[in-house]
Amino acid sequence: MLETTFPERAAQAMQRGSIQFYFDFSSPYSYIASEWIDAVAARHGRRVQWHAVLLGALFQVAELKPPVAYPLKREYALRDFERSAQFAGLPYRQPESFPIPTQNAARVFWWLNSQDPARAVAWARAGFRAYFARGVALNDPVQLKELAAQSGLDADAAEAAWSDPQWKDRLKAANDAAIAAGVFGAPFFIIDGEPFWGNDRQTQIESWLHSGPFKGLA
Amino acid sequence: MLETTFPERAAQAMQRGSIQFYFDFSSPYSYIASEWIDAVAARHGRRVQWHAVLLGALFQVAELKPPVAYPLKREYALRDFERSAQFAGLPYRQPESFPIPTQNAARVFWWLNSQDPARAVAWARAGFRAYFARGVALNDPVQLKELAAQSGLDADAAEAAWSDPQWKDRLKAANDAAIAAGVFGAPFFIIDGEPFWGNDRQTQIESWLHSGPFKGLA
Repeated sequence: MLETTFPERAAQAMQRGSIQFYFDFSSPYSYIASEWIDAVAARHGRRVQWHAVLLGALFQVAELKPPVAYPLKREYALRDFERSAQFAGLPYRQPESFPIPTQNAARVFWWLNSQDPARAVAWARAGFRAYFARGVALNDPVQLKELAAQSGLDADAAEAAWSDPQWKDRLKAANDAAIAAGVFGAPFFIIDGEPFWGNDRQTQIESWLHSGPFKGLA
Repeated sequence: MLETTFPERAAQAMQRGSIQFYFDFSSPYSYIASEWIDAVAARHGRRVQWHAVLLGALFQVAELKPPVAYPLKREYALRDFERSAQFAGLPYRQPESFPIPTQNAARVFWWLNSQDPARAVAWARAGFRAYFARGVALNDPVQLKELAAQSGLDADAAEAAWSDPQWKDRLKAANDAAIAAGVFGAPFFIIDGEPFWGNDRQTQIESWLHSGPFKGLA
């Protein structure tokens, strides 16, 4: 019945056992997912490998556009972002500038990840909360440096990292790997080779982690 | 915070208290939603008003395309249709011809609806199950007539209905009303003026019906 090659392709990018979690700092549904994915994984004895990516790069390959790029969908999406955050019990304030380019925040993520993945995850959470709850413009170098300092980082080192070809290349490699794994949106999860797209796949993910594939799925 | 005019526009199309449920016979997520919406509504003392519409007409206005029209999203969507059905405990077999034009099935719906909404709903359920569980091509007049007969309808009268300008106009009016209410996809629900798009909004809908707007939403 399922004749796609998704699991095979996804398997290449997968670290066995861990949940692969792909996000963009400018994605509201990624923000919401970032607040539950670690807890859900922990309940099922799994770890989460976070991947900061650029939705723009993914969309280009998949020939997609963000929901707010469409006239009627835009209006609904703006309402649904806030409603979904509130449904999840999270603060949300639609950023005035949205969506924004997030490569600097993502490069800082990969720079920290090379030292200590836990610090990178803490940075991702700080970035999401700053942008979606307090309106901090992550695309503004001044505000991003300030956020880095508030997050206990060396702000000058963070700025140096996002300007460094090494971390530019690392982010590009992350985008390429995500594309190779079939990722075309965010949040996107790959679990045991199975792809799940969207914050609203939380219940399916919990069920999958609890009991494995649903009846009938190979 | 929420500055959209969605609720105002939606209110015009709403029958107070009832859940407005918009579906296309060719939409897998509508099929899944059609199996739970009445039970969920009943648990909260609500009725459901079903609206057969044509996604093609809605997509044209909203400048959207179906998920299977995009290269990477297509592969995921085909997998997710089946997985989501199985997660809901429903039989699912991806139809070979997909998506299909569903105006004939939809006109029969509106014809029956004019006599008895309950019979129209029974027809909608029969159509969904035939197409998504048994591969009956609803766009094939022969198979559609056969399904009408199996569903206890006068098959010739059903065929006459889908060729009748009266029911063509009724379907067109349903599409226009849906567009006026801001509907751009299926399944789509409007509850107390609040729009919910997608089968995966089931948990938000249940919460909304139980407790009303989430904290912070006006």
